[in-house]
Amino acid sequence: MGRWQPNARGRLAQAAMELYSEHGFEQTTVAEIAKRAGLTERTFFRHYADKREVLFAGGSVLEDLFVRAVADAPDSAGPIDAVAAALAAADTVLLDRESARQRQAVIEANAELRERELIKLASLASALTAALRGRGVTDLTASLAAEAGIAVFKVAFARWIAEGERKDLPPLIRESLDELRAVASGLS
Amino acid sequence: MGRWQPNARGRLAQAAMELYSEHGFEQTTVAEIAKRAGLTERTFFRHYADKREVLFAGGSVLEDLFVRAVADAPDSAGPIDAVAAALAAADTVLLDRESARQRQAVIEANAELRERELIKLASLASALTAALRGRGVTDLTASLAAEAGIAVFKVAFARWIAEGERKDLPPLIRESLDELRAVASGLS
Repeated sequence: MGRWQPNARGRLAQAAMELYSEHGFEQTTVAEIAKRAGLTERTFFRHYADKREVLFAGGSVLEDLFVRAVADAPDSAGPIDAVAAALAAADTVLLDRESARQRQAVIEANAELRERELIKLASLASALTAALRGRGVTDLTASLAAEAGIAVFKVAFARWIAEGERKDLPPLIRESLDELRAVASGLS
Repeated sequence: MGRWQPNARGRLAQAAMELYSEHGFEQTTVAEIAKRAGLTERTFFRHYADKREVLFAGGSVLEDLFVRAVADAPDSAGPIDAVAAALAAADTVLLDRESARQRQAVIEANAELRERELIKLASLASALTAALRGRGVTDLTASLAAEAGIAVFKVAFARWIAEGERKDLPPLIRESLDELRAVASGLS
């Protein structure tokens, strides 16, 4: 182990994102990321399995957060309220809109990364479904509440990072939830 | 062009599915598929771009069907009713539960195919969103109605191909739609 590197993980993430934006994800090497961060490749691999993980590590944090929020929702909360509580917690991870925009631009530019993003969303929905089942919610209701919740999250997140958008993520999530209710209530 | 081959496309699809199930997708070659179907590789490539397309050609048919059904829904139909009309048309493409189960087993066994399936679902949601916008539905409502509709479709489809399930796809879709409405109406 080298000497202690203050916030090595954060510095690596920032360096990676800069390089992915400047040169593209595929053209960037781990050696370049480490160099830009003023760290070694060895330090990089202590924090990330590969250069793709820099972009998706936050997804696992979000998944843990969602699962915990669903489990911690009061017993009185119905399935969609438990999901709403989970989504409302997203802004403790998704703090910085500019970083989110930058990350999204990198992902949009690469087919493999777009696929990875879809897998992460599918994994979020599965984790939410399992967390709802853990509250005793039946399979059908759990699946629909979770999938609808991820739909709400996708739509709110896309608005949040859209150019010119000024509203914060939590009110956008709330608007999407209300819109989901309005849309679903229109069913004949 | 060789002599006319009756239902060459269907025979190739059936041969491919048999071989994918027996030996796995990766282990199967186009030459083997053509041979099993009693046709030539050249005939295969007149019908399919590659061996993956055999599994996903139906997705494009479904997408066209959904888009047309949304466009053709009566002017009086609200967004979710237009989406419901689209989903209700799915069983004109998804006729055979056993084939759907066989296809799903092949896809589940291969990471690349699972990713492709997620991309197809995301593409279906985008196409539905665009079709709703074409009816003058606002962006937020169109996105949520489309994404929620695909969530309903995913859940209903998974139930349809589950072992032991006897209900047909249309009633399962209707149950999922009703459950979506029930779930969303519970929002505090």
